Amino acid sequence: MYTAVVESIYLLVIVTLISVLQNAFFALKVEKECNNQNAKASAIERVSCANRNCMDAYATFLAVMWCAGLCLSQAPAAFAGILYLVVRQKYFVGYMGQTSQSTPGYLFGKRILFFLLLMCVVGIFNYLLTRYYGSDYKEYVETITGAASALLLLP
Amino acid sequence: MYTAVVESIYLLVIVTLISVLQNAFFALKVEKECNNQNAKASAIERVSCANRNCMDAYATFLAVMWCAGLCLSQAPAAFAGILYLVVRQKYFVGYMGQTSQSTPGYLFGKRILFFLLLMCVVGIFNYLLTRYYGSDYKEYVETITGAASALLLLP
Amino acid sequence: MYTAVVESIYLLVIVTLISVLQNAFFALKVEKECNNQNAKASAIERVSCANRNCMDAYATFLAVMWCAGLCLSQAPAAFAGILYLVVRQKYFVGYMGQTSQSTPGYLFGKRILFFLLLMCVVGIFNYLLTRYYGSDYKEYVETITGAASALLLLP
Repeated sequence: MYTAVVESIYLLVIVTLISVLQNAFFALKVEKECNNQNAKASAIERVSCANRNCMDAYATFLAVMWCAGLCLSQAPAAFAGILYLVVRQKYFVGYMGQTSQSTPGYLFGKRILFFLLLMCVVGIFNYLLTRYYGSDYKEYVETITGAASALLLLP
Repeated sequence: MYTAVVESIYLLVIVTLISVLQNAFFALKVEKECNNQNAKASAIERVSCANRNCMDAYATFLAVMWCAGLCLSQAPAAFAGILYLVVRQKYFVGYMGQTSQSTPGYLFGKRILFFLLLMCVVGIFNYLLTRYYGSDYKEYVETITGAASALLLLP
Repeated sequence: MYTAVVESIYLLVIVTLISVLQNAFFALKVEKECNNQNAKASAIERVSCANRNCMDAYATFLAVMWCAGLCLSQAPAAFAGILYLVVRQKYFVGYMGQTSQSTPGYLFGKRILFFLLLMCVVGIFNYLLTRYYGSDYKEYVETITGAASALLLLP
């Protein structure tokens, strides 16, 4: 049983590990900025705020990625997860670097989270169809999802 | 194996999806209030604080709901999860609407989280009984849990 | 299937439950300090900050502990989880008690999280080896991990 379990989650675990490393990177940035004697208060505030916004969304991201991976198929979910991490990195760096009044908004990665949410809904829907009508569209759905996940690469 | 896995978690996934939608609703409220030029500072602070309190408790809620669902039975856990989301919605709206000094406390949904925690403990206990004494009370426990979850509806 | 699932996660569930109780303890401390009429603003700020730092890291901790437990073996992961909770308790108490300017840093329990991360990596690596080369080192790895987790007790 062990191998079967790991086989169906290992891509998700890898993405989770990368996200943990990224969290550690963010936390080190915060720690470094706070310990820096010459840091301006605004810089500290900015890096804390960027980190906090990322952490606020982190539990939601993990939940929706794992649900999508478990309910439908793990490869597109992990791919979307990687893209989300890239977007998050850009958001964090952009938040720290901005000097004008205009901060990036509170939200980021909306499109990717929406895609993952949609994957969950489709997965649940397909399961209910299988259960009550005996018709399994899982293969078709997986193919479509795999193709659709490439659309996330569009800017 | 896939269908068996989805069958034992699909209610939990649905509740998780609803909670994610609710998180998005909260985040949009925060974003809207921050972008509103005429917003008072107190309103921004209030909505941020309400959102932050909800997010602080979110990981705990997810962890305890999934553990209760996996260890004992998913229907009562998902039902309690739905009730928690209703309580959270009320808390958030109440937090934003209040004008006097008295803010709602930091905590909310204590009773529901306690019920889910109890479900986990009973599930673990039942597993240990099954393992070391060979007596399985799972069916009785599930029936009792299902009935007890209705008590959460009491105001 | 149910018993097999619970058997492979029950230690992780127990650690999760303890962490939830600890979260509740932290939240009650915050609530109590906020309701205390005679509390100094600095005390309130300090306890909120300690709680927030703990909550920021909580999702990361849960994710990495569960991945380590699922991918490799649950006993060392749960053991490291318990140690993390002890470290967190010390951090929280130390944060509240300090009176000088020097706050403890933003991060804590780095070594334990790193150990759990390493466990995940080894587990994934072992799975890939098993899949592509057919050589399973799981037993050796589990023994080594079990022994290595004792090293975390070193101060």
